[in-house]
Amino acid sequence: MTEAFGALLVRTLVSGGQLCVGIDAHAGLLDAWGLPDSAAGARDFGLRVVEATAGRVGIVKPQVAFYERHGSAGYAALEDVLAAARDAHLLVIADVKRGDLGSSVEAYGEAWLTPGSPLEVDAMTAVAYQGLGSLDGVLERARASGKGVFVLAATSNPEALATQTAIRADGLSVAAGVVADVAEWNAASEAGALGSVGVVVGATIALADFGLSDTSFTGMPVLAPGFGHQGARIEQLPELFGAAAQNVLVSASRSILSAGPSGLGAAIENAAAEVAACLA
Amino acid sequence: MTEAFGALLVRTLVSGGQLCVGIDAHAGLLDAWGLPDSAAGARDFGLRVVEATAGRVGIVKPQVAFYERHGSAGYAALEDVLAAARDAHLLVIADVKRGDLGSSVEAYGEAWLTPGSPLEVDAMTAVAYQGLGSLDGVLERARASGKGVFVLAATSNPEALATQTAIRADGLSVAAGVVADVAEWNAASEAGALGSVGVVVGATIALADFGLSDTSFTGMPVLAPGFGHQGARIEQLPELFGAAAQNVLVSASRSILSAGPSGLGAAIENAAAEVAACLA
Repeated sequence: MTEAFGALLVRTLVSGGQLCVGIDAHAGLLDAWGLPDSAAGARDFGLRVVEATAGRVGIVKPQVAFYERHGSAGYAALEDVLAAARDAHLLVIADVKRGDLGSSVEAYGEAWLTPGSPLEVDAMTAVAYQGLGSLDGVLERARASGKGVFVLAATSNPEALATQTAIRADGLSVAAGVVADVAEWNAASEAGALGSVGVVVGATIALADFGLSDTSFTGMPVLAPGFGHQGARIEQLPELFGAAAQNVLVSASRSILSAGPSGLGAAIENAAAEVAACLA
Repeated sequence: MTEAFGALLVRTLVSGGQLCVGIDAHAGLLDAWGLPDSAAGARDFGLRVVEATAGRVGIVKPQVAFYERHGSAGYAALEDVLAAARDAHLLVIADVKRGDLGSSVEAYGEAWLTPGSPLEVDAMTAVAYQGLGSLDGVLERARASGKGVFVLAATSNPEALATQTAIRADGLSVAAGVVADVAEWNAASEAGALGSVGVVVGATIALADFGLSDTSFTGMPVLAPGFGHQGARIEQLPELFGAAAQNVLVSASRSILSAGPSGLGAAIENAAAEVAACLA
């Protein structure tokens, strides 16, 4: 029987800590690293991040937009980066924020969550503007393949507030509704310490603004971007997420990547130590 | 000066009618067409749809998930299909439903809406779970390049209702909020008969359920999937969209594609005639 993603994630968090290193092959970073703004540059960038992460922490999160920007050549580069990450036994979360209906959303699940697929990863991010039920094709694919999904819930940009705090007919905010729907899916699916479906929650938000609290995330992995570059300090992790802090994947990208290729290993170690210290 | 997408769209609707032919390279359809379930099969499928559409109607909408399913090889196939559609002077809407923040969403805009990019199209679909403002990078890119964006507003799947009818602090539903925000963007951007930013509205919904009416879409293109296979009949177009019916891109995929390669041209002509008849 295939191991559930939640179980794999728990092992990874225990062995490698909670830091997740973003792979943001942004044109500005490529330039700062002395790499060309091309698919080849994005490939080299990703491979170097994988190499520096391996053995230091357990999770990477490539931002797929920066590969799509280079078309099919960019996707071929991404496939090389994903293969290298798999070979290095890193847990890979593709930041793709896909969402759709029916056979289209199933096709996204097949692309990213099928063992042996060229774009195979351990988990993907998804968007539920059409309701969590619209993602069933992805969630079922994840369950069958031992893969994970992180669904956008509450995000840190100010323009998000109007939509994500809107109140549904059942009295929940849109963000809290996503979290509740994910909790329900996990409860119906498995009984591990962590479910295989998680949520994305910006590290700089006030949970209460969205009708959320730290207990909303019981048993659910939380992918939290925004540490470093976007303003949240890692030391605030317990204050921001309270009882859920130990489920949080602390995602940092620019703050680590801006150290450049030579300083990357040390930047990852420092950030990982900071995460570990504030949770000790 | 670059022509605005809205102006290009008006010309296309006048010369080619309002039918938009979906390119859904679904495994089941590939099989029915005698094509392999591979990137090569998806390429052949797309090229044949482009060939059958050219000269009959003016707009195609490739569903990108069915190309992503085949990884970088699928994207290379898609690039060939997009190039063929450009050569055939078809207006191409990439159904990608992308959404993100900051430099990530800018990268999506660069990927799909930059002249000369391998994935260049005329317009893309997008998701505003993080607020329409989160898409600024895409909207600005569209404005600068004469491209269009269709933002998901109200969709036809039942699971969408809770989120899309949730009430924002300003009293609008989430769906009506997207429509109002798009109207505001267009008003601030240009003065053509149709704006360059539109919305996606499922053809089988009751607009009133979402706090919308036909007048919500004044001056705004509406991409309406769901005709045919998903249950809406083309003849219902005036009844469904009222005063906005002439702004609607009537998107049909399976109902046309299931005619098979030999029946495709006739199926497109029949559907186009049906659209024209009900708007006459």
